[in-house]
Amino acid sequence: MKRILIAGTGLIGASVGLALRAAGFEGEIVGTGPNAETLKIAQVRGAIDTWHVSAEADADAATSDVILLAGPVLAIKDWMQRLASVLGEHQLVTDVGSTKREIAELAKRLFNQPGKARFLPGHPMAGKESGGAALAEAALFQNAMWLFTPSNDGTPTPLEAEWREWVAKFGARSMDLDAARHDELCAWVSHLPQMVSTAMSALLEEKLADAPELSAIGGRALREMTRLGASPYSMWRDVAMTNTEAIAATLHALEQRLAHLRENLRTTELREEFLLANNFRKRRD
Amino acid sequence: MKRILIAGTGLIGASVGLALRAAGFEGEIVGTGPNAETLKIAQVRGAIDTWHVSAEADADAATSDVILLAGPVLAIKDWMQRLASVLGEHQLVTDVGSTKREIAELAKRLFNQPGKARFLPGHPMAGKESGGAALAEAALFQNAMWLFTPSNDGTPTPLEAEWREWVAKFGARSMDLDAARHDELCAWVSHLPQMVSTAMSALLEEKLADAPELSAIGGRALREMTRLGASPYSMWRDVAMTNTEAIAATLHALEQRLAHLRENLRTTELREEFLLANNFRKRRD
Repeated sequence: MKRILIAGTGLIGASVGLALRAAGFEGEIVGTGPNAETLKIAQVRGAIDTWHVSAEADADAATSDVILLAGPVLAIKDWMQRLASVLGEHQLVTDVGSTKREIAELAKRLFNQPGKARFLPGHPMAGKESGGAALAEAALFQNAMWLFTPSNDGTPTPLEAEWREWVAKFGARSMDLDAARHDELCAWVSHLPQMVSTAMSALLEEKLADAPELSAIGGRALREMTRLGASPYSMWRDVAMTNTEAIAATLHALEQRLAHLRENLRTTELREEFLLANNFRKRRD
Repeated sequence: MKRILIAGTGLIGASVGLALRAAGFEGEIVGTGPNAETLKIAQVRGAIDTWHVSAEADADAATSDVILLAGPVLAIKDWMQRLASVLGEHQLVTDVGSTKREIAELAKRLFNQPGKARFLPGHPMAGKESGGAALAEAALFQNAMWLFTPSNDGTPTPLEAEWREWVAKFGARSMDLDAARHDELCAWVSHLPQMVSTAMSALLEEKLADAPELSAIGGRALREMTRLGASPYSMWRDVAMTNTEAIAATLHALEQRLAHLRENLRTTELREEFLLANNFRKRRD
């Protein structure tokens, strides 16, 4: 890998640029995206060397060894559609999208075929409440889990192997799993917590926004359970759009669980819920 | 205040003992509770000077200026019933119970009358996931909110004023509010987050406990949203028992909110929820 194009230089994309430099990458890092301002910030931060806005990026894509698609899932799918015909078999495309089933299916159709570029679907489990290149940092992936959901039809190319090595140099652990299983598990451990935090924050905004006592009373419990309420719709819309059924199933299960708990606030069933919850925490401490 | 009896020397009770000493209290701190082991730990930690188990504590209560009831709400109510006839009008009883309506009502019946001890209901908003005197610390109440729900029939006694001064010396802020309003607000900002975290943890324990990928994938979002899952049933049973209707109302509201969100994962209603949630967080950052 001598040249990499990072399409989307927000928090994750710009952090990858910084992490590459910190890990000793000496090649060229080119950025692209719809917004010149965002690209300038990434450049000033040292995350990219040069950039062109999206409309002018095809030549950059054609001449890069690796193309990293770093944006919301639907934007990644748009880039895949656009780049499939521009790229050739000695190139690697990889991504950082939050859901993997639809991306992996599209990769099978558009890439990973004779004469086509290789596509390795990826998902670093890292982030912050707020996005943007200004918050990017080389250490963002330290100790984070970087998931891959490769299709198993084809031996890994040298570039694929090299990209996995860079990810390891970022300080991330990595794991391969099936794309559908990825989306199901992420619905439970990431998308459900997000939707619950959003729903609870929205509910409190409607019910208590005007209560003067609220800011005095709310402590760590409230702060933690609503922290994800700050997450941007722009990113989560695409998660909800591309993992709808799995997320709906987890939400429905939690609704039923809350109703059960509500109906048993004065019975020993409440004890069973607390013991199950205690066990869950114990496994993880 | 020359002598204080702390009934219940778990995390909060023992931390009050340590905080008193750190704030310069030079009088005697006596402990009591059902369990000699717990009392010994509190004594070794320096939170209490001496102790008697509950059955032998009436004389300590009769000779103390202030009696602090530091246990689960139903245990506090038991202590109130038992001590009402033992105590006299120059004494102050105060507590740290998580719900205040039932305690304030009982205080009106049993205390705060001519010839009876004064009762000042209190609630320090401080704690840890795990309890016990071993985790107690003098700084637990630094910057915490210590709520009081006094009945307004009677001028504050000198001991009441002095207790408030000690609370200020612990580094806590304080606020007075109506007991029923306290319970309603705490249902939203404390009890609902707890029940949601418990329900989510219990659900994940049932659905995913055996998934080997889980511990690899779960990140900060999962950890935060399930942290309160470690909370003990023993304390929360009493909260659920003494604030049932308010908690049920918040749970029911959240169930409906989650169902609404689930039915709108692919519509612009999802955007409205994220914007409301964003606004809630913005007010608090």
